[in-house]
Amino acid sequence: MENIKGNLVVGQSGGPTAVINQSLVGVIQEALKHENITGIYGARNGVEGVLREDFVNLRAESHWNLEDVAATPSAGLGSCRFKPKEEDCKKIFSIFQKHGVRYFFYIGGNDSDLSAGIINKIAQEQNYDLRVFHCPKTIDNDLLVTDHCPGYGSAGKYVAQAFMGNDLDNRSLPGIKIDVVMGRNAGWLTAAAALARVNKGDGPHALCFPERSYTIKEFVERVEAIYNSNGRASIAVSEGIADKDGNVWLQSDIIRAELRELGMDSIIEWMDATGRIEDAAGGAKLDAFGHAQLSGSGMMADFLAAVTKIHLFKKSGKKVRLRADTLGYAQRSFAGCVSETDAAEARESAAMAVRVAVSGVKSGSICFKRVPSESGKYFCDSFRAPLEDVSGVNFPKGVKQYRPMDDKFITGDKFDVTPEFIEWARPLLGNLPVKGTLTNTKI
Amino acid sequence: MENIKGNLVVGQSGGPTAVINQSLVGVIQEALKHENITGIYGARNGVEGVLREDFVNLRAESHWNLEDVAATPSAGLGSCRFKPKEEDCKKIFSIFQKHGVRYFFYIGGNDSDLSAGIINKIAQEQNYDLRVFHCPKTIDNDLLVTDHCPGYGSAGKYVAQAFMGNDLDNRSLPGIKIDVVMGRNAGWLTAAAALARVNKGDGPHALCFPERSYTIKEFVERVEAIYNSNGRASIAVSEGIADKDGNVWLQSDIIRAELRELGMDSIIEWMDATGRIEDAAGGAKLDAFGHAQLSGSGMMADFLAAVTKIHLFKKSGKKVRLRADTLGYAQRSFAGCVSETDAAEARESAAMAVRVAVSGVKSGSICFKRVPSESGKYFCDSFRAPLEDVSGVNFPKGVKQYRPMDDKFITGDKFDVTPEFIEWARPLLGNLPVKGTLTNTKI
Repeated sequence: MENIKGNLVVGQSGGPTAVINQSLVGVIQEALKHENITGIYGARNGVEGVLREDFVNLRAESHWNLEDVAATPSAGLGSCRFKPKEEDCKKIFSIFQKHGVRYFFYIGGNDSDLSAGIINKIAQEQNYDLRVFHCPKTIDNDLLVTDHCPGYGSAGKYVAQAFMGNDLDNRSLPGIKIDVVMGRNAGWLTAAAALARVNKGDGPHALCFPERSYTIKEFVERVEAIYNSNGRASIAVSEGIADKDGNVWLQSDIIRAELRELGMDSIIEWMDATGRIEDAAGGAKLDAFGHAQLSGSGMMADFLAAVTKIHLFKKSGKKVRLRADTLGYAQRSFAGCVSETDAAEARESAAMAVRVAVSGVKSGSICFKRVPSESGKYFCDSFRAPLEDVSGVNFPKGVKQYRPMDDKFITGDKFDVTPEFIEWARPLLGNLPVKGTLTNTKI
Repeated sequence: MENIKGNLVVGQSGGPTAVINQSLVGVIQEALKHENITGIYGARNGVEGVLREDFVNLRAESHWNLEDVAATPSAGLGSCRFKPKEEDCKKIFSIFQKHGVRYFFYIGGNDSDLSAGIINKIAQEQNYDLRVFHCPKTIDNDLLVTDHCPGYGSAGKYVAQAFMGNDLDNRSLPGIKIDVVMGRNAGWLTAAAALARVNKGDGPHALCFPERSYTIKEFVERVEAIYNSNGRASIAVSEGIADKDGNVWLQSDIIRAELRELGMDSIIEWMDATGRIEDAAGGAKLDAFGHAQLSGSGMMADFLAAVTKIHLFKKSGKKVRLRADTLGYAQRSFAGCVSETDAAEARESAAMAVRVAVSGVKSGSICFKRVPSESGKYFCDSFRAPLEDVSGVNFPKGVKQYRPMDDKFITGDKFDVTPEFIEWARPLLGNLPVKGTLTNTKI
């Protein structure tokens, strides 16, 4: 494999993160060092921009401005939710040929890796020397192969800081606080809430993950037990919380049956009423990939509030102070909450993608592994993995193409993370704010 | 009026803020300087703690620890939602007498000022020399007399940073994003979203305030117009958005009638279903003061999403990408988002309360005024106002006991803030993160 001269295209795809622009600037700054890379083009809105030949000249950006862009959350080039079909990839490839593109870097999640893989295959079939690299990003941290994903550390930091605040607020005015955290398939981000704990008794006091199944009864009884023993409760629930068949609660027949059994028919009526609103607005809550829409609505948190409030009222006859929030898009886009580790790793690994491509390697995804150290200090190294390993495209049908949390990271009672998880996650989140507390010395 | 020797009690009340502990530490650090102040007691959970004589020794805290506490959001002493009646205030006063308390500092909002006023009156009637001071705090910024309130700047900063992120996210993946902001009576916090704007075309593109009334038609048509001209829309709506009679949307008969008129009956059914859940959980959504519960639920955002989605679907036959978030409790408690200005002002004004009390003034609330400066730079001065002026307790029935946004701060079309507001608010929020953008030089 030899070095080849030509233009570079970089694009961003999928849900933005706090450091997706660090990856972009990592590609640009490294590309500037290599004389075989001629034009440095940005594709607006990922492969959608490639298809409409909407390219911007990234050599025109000053170093100063690039640093500002790198420090800014969300995709500076614009993003897309477009998953190109074989036909689209052929068109993308021909556009690359037409523009003399020899280097393509796609910053995104599983779908972006998949797209890169298809484009790479076409280039190989056509015997056209195209270097195709995937730079991982996802706040969900659910990509295969890699130890963790750029974007996760900052989102995890946001979640931890939100739960720090939640817990302090909940200590100030005791009651029950339930927060719904992003992550449809995997509980990594929900688990990050546990990093909010500093002092004895700190919340979150229970966490629920998509990797385990829960009944309503299990959930409300756990919340009740915590509330009864502590006088307060802070609870972290993944938006992907599911029944024993793996269906998310809001779309589960098992959960509906349980609601009926528990005498919570008013909640079923409410869910049905919500469905009729969706009908009136043009259809069920499905996104472009056929996933049910779980984010961008407060429904899951309100559902959890409803089952818990009704349960506690039935048990005690009293109305408890209960609030539920959906942490929402701030988890991936809040300006001003970036993990230093995450920012550096996003930048460096994207730069490495360019170095590997220039060195002659045709394709790959840049993954992370931990480097064992005598001191126990966290060190992270990058390595190139085959595109198809990261997308899981060659997996047999039915095998998960994403990475759930390791079993060792969830406690046996399924309502908490283990100390191993805390140790694993802590370096990724960077510095967390101080959490001071009075000694409360009695008079 | 003379100086008097005795113990000091400080308490915190109401919804926590990011700097309510700065006020606490301001009181403690200043109290330590005055030999007439003997014991420095903290009342746990505000006046509730006084009533159960639950005091902690704040002299036992190290300076280092106090700095950690000051930097930590939420009430370090614990808070309460308890509004003492005349009877309770008498009991509080007798407990103060019993413990030789001569100085009482109550950090809180309107209700805390009111409580302080009643306790002060009893002390005067009993001819007992008690110095009673209110240290304002509220993220809502709706206290009378003062230019602005400690707590507002940091909450405003959080809101601005959330909208910065929203806008960047919305640029990356265009669609409609609606966010509901705290502030039942006043739009100050919603207005802070406008500080997220840095570059041309930045959102929020429309804001709705409790100070103006809106019909559903006005709201959805405004969103539609923005979406049609920009291809995207970021919208900030106060949780207190109201009809022309001043009733909040979710409790408005006018809004119900309009929903029916607009053929949005499915939303009425959904609202009724929500009400039945509340019934099953022990009653309607009313808090301790008889206010409807607007925070801690995603209902308002989901309502706005529903009316907008149905409207746009009826108009275009197409389903638009629309998400709605309720910014939630993070606005008042998120750890790691503090305005430097707000922190300093909270600390200094609380210290001033102690100085004024020690100087012999019997009571008051420490308010802010701006100091005009030749350079136009922001300077703020503190002054003592009578307790009854801040609570508005002597206002005739029907006159608002809180401060709405000034008319000059809301545009004539009621969907935006004026440049005067931006100028007014900017110094209060402290430093905001950089918002970098590519020049997007076409190839």
